[in-house]
Amino acid sequence: MDASHSELDLHSTGKGEGETVGIALLGFGTVGAEVFRLLDDNADAFAHRIGGPAEIRGIAVQNKNKLRPGVPSELLTDDAKALISRDDIDLVVEVIGGIDFPRELVLAALNSGKSVVTANKALVAAHADELAEAAERSGVDLYFEAAVAAAIPVVGMLRRSLAGDQIERISGIVNGTTNYILDAMESTGASYDEALAEATRLGYAEADPTADVEGHDAASKAAIMASIGFHTRVKFEDVHCEGITKITADDIVAANNAGYSIKLLAICERLHREDGSEVVNARVHPTLVDKDHPLASVSESYNAIFVEAEAAGSLMFYGNGAGGNPTASAVLGDVVGAARNIVHGGRAPGENTYANLPIADFGEVDTRYHIDMEVQDRAGVLEAIAALFAQHEVSLRTVRQEDGEDTARLIVVTHAAKEATLENIVSVLGELDEVEAVHSVIRLGS
Amino acid sequence: MDASHSELDLHSTGKGEGETVGIALLGFGTVGAEVFRLLDDNADAFAHRIGGPAEIRGIAVQNKNKLRPGVPSELLTDDAKALISRDDIDLVVEVIGGIDFPRELVLAALNSGKSVVTANKALVAAHADELAEAAERSGVDLYFEAAVAAAIPVVGMLRRSLAGDQIERISGIVNGTTNYILDAMESTGASYDEALAEATRLGYAEADPTADVEGHDAASKAAIMASIGFHTRVKFEDVHCEGITKITADDIVAANNAGYSIKLLAICERLHREDGSEVVNARVHPTLVDKDHPLASVSESYNAIFVEAEAAGSLMFYGNGAGGNPTASAVLGDVVGAARNIVHGGRAPGENTYANLPIADFGEVDTRYHIDMEVQDRAGVLEAIAALFAQHEVSLRTVRQEDGEDTARLIVVTHAAKEATLENIVSVLGELDEVEAVHSVIRLGS
Repeated sequence: MDASHSELDLHSTGKGEGETVGIALLGFGTVGAEVFRLLDDNADAFAHRIGGPAEIRGIAVQNKNKLRPGVPSELLTDDAKALISRDDIDLVVEVIGGIDFPRELVLAALNSGKSVVTANKALVAAHADELAEAAERSGVDLYFEAAVAAAIPVVGMLRRSLAGDQIERISGIVNGTTNYILDAMESTGASYDEALAEATRLGYAEADPTADVEGHDAASKAAIMASIGFHTRVKFEDVHCEGITKITADDIVAANNAGYSIKLLAICERLHREDGSEVVNARVHPTLVDKDHPLASVSESYNAIFVEAEAAGSLMFYGNGAGGNPTASAVLGDVVGAARNIVHGGRAPGENTYANLPIADFGEVDTRYHIDMEVQDRAGVLEAIAALFAQHEVSLRTVRQEDGEDTARLIVVTHAAKEATLENIVSVLGELDEVEAVHSVIRLGS
Repeated sequence: MDASHSELDLHSTGKGEGETVGIALLGFGTVGAEVFRLLDDNADAFAHRIGGPAEIRGIAVQNKNKLRPGVPSELLTDDAKALISRDDIDLVVEVIGGIDFPRELVLAALNSGKSVVTANKALVAAHADELAEAAERSGVDLYFEAAVAAAIPVVGMLRRSLAGDQIERISGIVNGTTNYILDAMESTGASYDEALAEATRLGYAEADPTADVEGHDAASKAAIMASIGFHTRVKFEDVHCEGITKITADDIVAANNAGYSIKLLAICERLHREDGSEVVNARVHPTLVDKDHPLASVSESYNAIFVEAEAAGSLMFYGNGAGGNPTASAVLGDVVGAARNIVHGGRAPGENTYANLPIADFGEVDTRYHIDMEVQDRAGVLEAIAALFAQHEVSLRTVRQEDGEDTARLIVVTHAAKEATLENIVSVLGELDEVEAVHSVIRLGS
């Protein structure tokens, strides 16, 4: 018994059981307020789960004179840097948003030996390398579960649960705003503008919806998921990104008729080249998802992530991917993890980019196209178009023609081919005399 | 920089970066063989993820002379205890199954200061307290992700990701055999015996299917999920357990007609009593799940777990809940976690039963009943039955009558009431002159 106790002591190089972990909360918006409330309401439970009390000892806000009911005014400060540097702060929770200012604060915290929990996807996707290095140098933890799909534990699942497996593909609906808009278009027949207006009215879209509807938010999450899943540094700018602003009510109807839903997917893929080498790709684009696929039935602002791994097979995770409470849940799960390590010693698995796989150009990825075009309504047109595909060695899965007055509508679905080849075909299609207009090109998924 | 390096050293009290972790593998069935193969095939990846090589240094089997292609014979031993006690073994992986013998081995390993990864749900559900104490005394880790739903990371999600949240309810399909049988009955109209025979033929059911079809396997998993989720010791014998052997083809048809699928659910619930106190309940029984609920569409042998938490809201996890590869994936995720801690120092969150909530009797739980009975086809019958429910203050949601020759079939769906009250009503129903027979009683869920 004595021998085993000394073994225990050897492992316990943290502050020690029962000691208080001092927390600095940076930001007091929806998420920050929820984190404060839950930590306060459930103080006993947190103390038990951590191994000692967790105490918020300061809250950095822009305007410290704003009335915040329930928050002791002595906790508020507008000097975040001074708060971070205090000796009684062990753990910094960043829920400000933006990139440059939080980057400065998070780096300052890590460099001064304090663990950090952040919900900031843009920051992590842009600067993970620098932040991970700082955490590594100081021997502290950097947690960011809330940065991808809020309370859906994507980061923990990729980093820990599947740590003994090889991940082949991650595809997911990771942006609630765009899923809400696409789902509304599908269920009500609304145009993109109408659905966006409704989403804004209901609070699902921000006043400036650019980051969501152009796919930037999803691309940040794709970069994070690909980095962890493939043990390779994938940055925001490595992600091919197309948003949903060009999707029309017509596209949705055509997709529905063909048995698909249109979803904005973040896709992270390991590609096996013919020479045996591996590369990775991450991309975000509107995708036709077969209505039988579990991702097709993800409605409203819900998120879902579909993971394919060598041994585990297919796994799906589904839940609220945004919102104050679900985000606070993820932040607090991280707070317990980081605080436990501060009390008991030990560190969370950090960034690990040992595989360092090359990032494949989007052109190298195998995709399938659904092309909706207007063609001349005369003999020989289909032949000319089929010849173009054949010439590029792309075979067609289905061809559907609907006759109009002088022109006909032709919907072509291809088999898989290199993205670059398909892109090339579409640019040539547009110049054929037989083709009046290419209305839309949407890739098939999941 | 120097200061931060010494900080890092302070936290690193494990074997040290780059050192080899010696593993003893107990059992070499489907899962054991897969664990061995994957660790061997991906040795480099594991070394990077752990921080040092992981080496299987011995495999305990019943018959060490059996031919096992690809396995060096010097690794095989039929003396598991001697293997565990070897100085070059740091981590013990138990994939034998059963209870008594693995219990002895796992305790021996933990007591001698070795971390343990087990896939053994029966062992953990029966002896978690004793095992957790042994791990705690020695300051080592006990991991068992594979014990619940194989590669679906239920344990990690409850223990880590939701560590900052309050879990209210966990309901899940956690047994693939019974889900396969129920799904086959629903999709083909087969009887229970026919579906079981087919499941056995295809390898979804074991030669002796008792543990699966009687719900014991699901009850073990319910005990584990409830223990972690509610920070309370819930043992196998605390779980109310009913299997699927009495479900008839008729029940399935009646359920379908009413818009339900019948699923064997494991349900773990936090109950809020009127006096403000909390109790927990865990149970396994066939349940009518609304066809719109995500659990209703879980087909074949797939598993899915639906979690409701205070801040996170509803989350669902879906995947292969059994099989050699998915189970090996979960075991290896745990191996990476445990081996990382051996190399770097630190410990995983262990058992934490601080909340120690009382376990509610099943009779205290609110349930809803779907009662299918044969009644006399005459005036006044419905009145007598309705009076019985009213007398117990149970209100009815729907009453459907189908006329037969001399008798009528009456299907009653109740609103929520205490299980004990509903049980009592059913026992009285069976004795009413107006009731010829109570064909089936199935609870509504999820």
